[in-house]
Amino acid sequence: MATTDVQQEVIEKAKAARAAAQAMAALPTAAKDRALTAMAQALVERQNFLLEANSEDVRSARDAGLSEALVDRLLLSEQRIAAVAAGLLEVANLPDPVGEIMVGWRRPNGLRITKVRVPLGVVGMIYESRPNVTVDAAGLCIKAGNTVILRGGSEALRSNIALARVIAEAAYGEGVPEGAIQLIETAERAAAQELMRLSQYVDVLIPRGGEGLIRAVVDNATVPVIETGVGNCHVYVDDSADLEMAESIVVNAKCQRPGVCNAAETLLVHRAVADEFLRRVGPALAQQGVELRACPATREILPEAAEATEDDWRAEYLSLILAVRVVDSFEQAVEHITAYGSKHSEAIVTRDHERAERFCELVDAAAVYVNASTRFTDGGEFGLGAEIGISTQKLHARGPMGLRELTTYKYVVHGAGQIRE
Amino acid sequence: MATTDVQQEVIEKAKAARAAAQAMAALPTAAKDRALTAMAQALVERQNFLLEANSEDVRSARDAGLSEALVDRLLLSEQRIAAVAAGLLEVANLPDPVGEIMVGWRRPNGLRITKVRVPLGVVGMIYESRPNVTVDAAGLCIKAGNTVILRGGSEALRSNIALARVIAEAAYGEGVPEGAIQLIETAERAAAQELMRLSQYVDVLIPRGGEGLIRAVVDNATVPVIETGVGNCHVYVDDSADLEMAESIVVNAKCQRPGVCNAAETLLVHRAVADEFLRRVGPALAQQGVELRACPATREILPEAAEATEDDWRAEYLSLILAVRVVDSFEQAVEHITAYGSKHSEAIVTRDHERAERFCELVDAAAVYVNASTRFTDGGEFGLGAEIGISTQKLHARGPMGLRELTTYKYVVHGAGQIRE
Repeated sequence: MATTDVQQEVIEKAKAARAAAQAMAALPTAAKDRALTAMAQALVERQNFLLEANSEDVRSARDAGLSEALVDRLLLSEQRIAAVAAGLLEVANLPDPVGEIMVGWRRPNGLRITKVRVPLGVVGMIYESRPNVTVDAAGLCIKAGNTVILRGGSEALRSNIALARVIAEAAYGEGVPEGAIQLIETAERAAAQELMRLSQYVDVLIPRGGEGLIRAVVDNATVPVIETGVGNCHVYVDDSADLEMAESIVVNAKCQRPGVCNAAETLLVHRAVADEFLRRVGPALAQQGVELRACPATREILPEAAEATEDDWRAEYLSLILAVRVVDSFEQAVEHITAYGSKHSEAIVTRDHERAERFCELVDAAAVYVNASTRFTDGGEFGLGAEIGISTQKLHARGPMGLRELTTYKYVVHGAGQIRE
Repeated sequence: MATTDVQQEVIEKAKAARAAAQAMAALPTAAKDRALTAMAQALVERQNFLLEANSEDVRSARDAGLSEALVDRLLLSEQRIAAVAAGLLEVANLPDPVGEIMVGWRRPNGLRITKVRVPLGVVGMIYESRPNVTVDAAGLCIKAGNTVILRGGSEALRSNIALARVIAEAAYGEGVPEGAIQLIETAERAAAQELMRLSQYVDVLIPRGGEGLIRAVVDNATVPVIETGVGNCHVYVDDSADLEMAESIVVNAKCQRPGVCNAAETLLVHRAVADEFLRRVGPALAQQGVELRACPATREILPEAAEATEDDWRAEYLSLILAVRVVDSFEQAVEHITAYGSKHSEAIVTRDHERAERFCELVDAAAVYVNASTRFTDGGEFGLGAEIGISTQKLHARGPMGLRELTTYKYVVHGAGQIRE
């Protein structure tokens, strides 16, 4: 039966990843860094093999009528392979989080307790079309001492198989235990379903992709999940704002890269400055090709804006569309964000100190900004190094997830025969 | 329809807890501590009301034929109420985790980033018979700035309703926002099922109870879960161990309080010392009334021991039963723990430094002990203050979960108009 074969593949690979986890966790930093370097070299050396596999995926995608935007996400090139390889070298240069003594103390009975950072164990990644995630995720997991089970999008399957083969061979050649890098090689949905429920082998699942993918994982997984990425981010322009600064922040947050999760999706403007500010930012946004979906008060000022519906306040457009609402007060802005925000990144532009403070306290999000663009929510921009995703949940990790967020801790307790009275 | 009414109750209460979360998160430490003190006072002042409600639960439990052990878990007394009240005062005296600046730095572009500890938001607690959990959990959640939705066992429903009413009234009188303490007042299973899937209102679920309860929550929840408490803990007696120390640790880990998750369930003994050690510890355990389930090699030494089956290696007895296995080597002990342990608490008794180090590195558990009893895995014993449970998963929190583990963080970013290039 087909389903059983699929389940069997996933179970075998999860077992193999689990079996390799103990040795992987104990691998010295130098060996991990050598492995990452070897993986980077192998990608460059074997780029013809990779490009060939990728060109088959691209051909199938075009045959299947995928949009050119989607085909572009799938596409590898010499340059893109070089960038992915450079990413691995960057990870090799980051400090190893494993073994860090986070805190330690001695108890009155003489027990010595240390809280030591250790790998999570087995990380399952479920992601969509871009094949670079295969390499990025494997590199970060290896550096953090984890084994990884990769499950990419079906459109990129041949590329992912080729990439995983190349990096796994290189890694195993440098002491990474065989089995530490697993790729699910079947496109069937049942494979992902099975992976989500293997809590005896998999310690954490990280879905990366659109809202549908993430929802499916959260709804079906019994393995603990870190939700990533959906960003319905707001910029609120207060009546005390420097409007020139506000314009530059709004345009940057919306337009600098509209397809990513930390781009702004809704602009909130205080009524007292709505007329002046909207007349200013409207043309600036129009010049960038931004389409507006606006509340009635906005449309009185910018009649070319379309009418916003309830759906617009909830939308993560990921494109050059911006919802705009005039609010009566600071409080109403916070209420709007509380009601519609996805707890990713939220910004206020203000000159009022108390409002800046209250915004930071009241707004519940991974990153809260005063007078800066939401586009900075990013491991690299925060100075934390490469990231495996942006968490929008509150457990374990919030915001950019780098190497440290791919670890957990254990308490190591040293005694001299202590027993509990 | 009954189900709809049940769902409606849960949804209404979850909405109310969510609505109170913003004000709760902003409540100053002094107000939280006053509320905890008032809650403690109210419990003592209204103990007759509480005891009356409890006596109805106890009567029903006896009528339903519950064992006296279970009835005892349910029972409140003047003394037990005083102990619960004292627990609240202890929590009031613990430092407030909210607002801690965990780390902060400045980026080259001038952005100032701080990582600030903030409440989780809305915590759902699903637990079994002991009514003190109602108060303990509410107290810890309030101190950590969270609102809480409590769902206790049906046998304790009248006690829990009375307790929640008393503490909520007292808390609201001291500035805790109305709605911050919610108790699901229906005994139907559908209520718990609904609570587990309200991810738009509930930030985290903490199940506390037996394996069945925890499994049901993990399997059905879409709200992120922190698993607690199943402890299949081992003590491994190495061939280099001080056998007198080993005896005292084994007896303590098994017998000091056998019904708790950090009690030892399996003893592993190195073959080289098996004869001497088992002849020593066997009678000591027998004296405490411990029944042994043992491997063939153990039974050659202690013929009175019953034969262990595969199930015994997996069992969390929570009673005076101990599985015993003779292992050929340190490595086999680690393999056994890796195969059967529940990642809670594991101990080695050894005089060999390298083995102590390797045990701490290789064994994957929340707490790893060298020459001490597993019974110390406890918030109080670690010096961390009162705990809401012991996490056996790796995400977010591992081991004892106190106030800090009931929080998350946000990044607060201050700029002066920075935009991303």
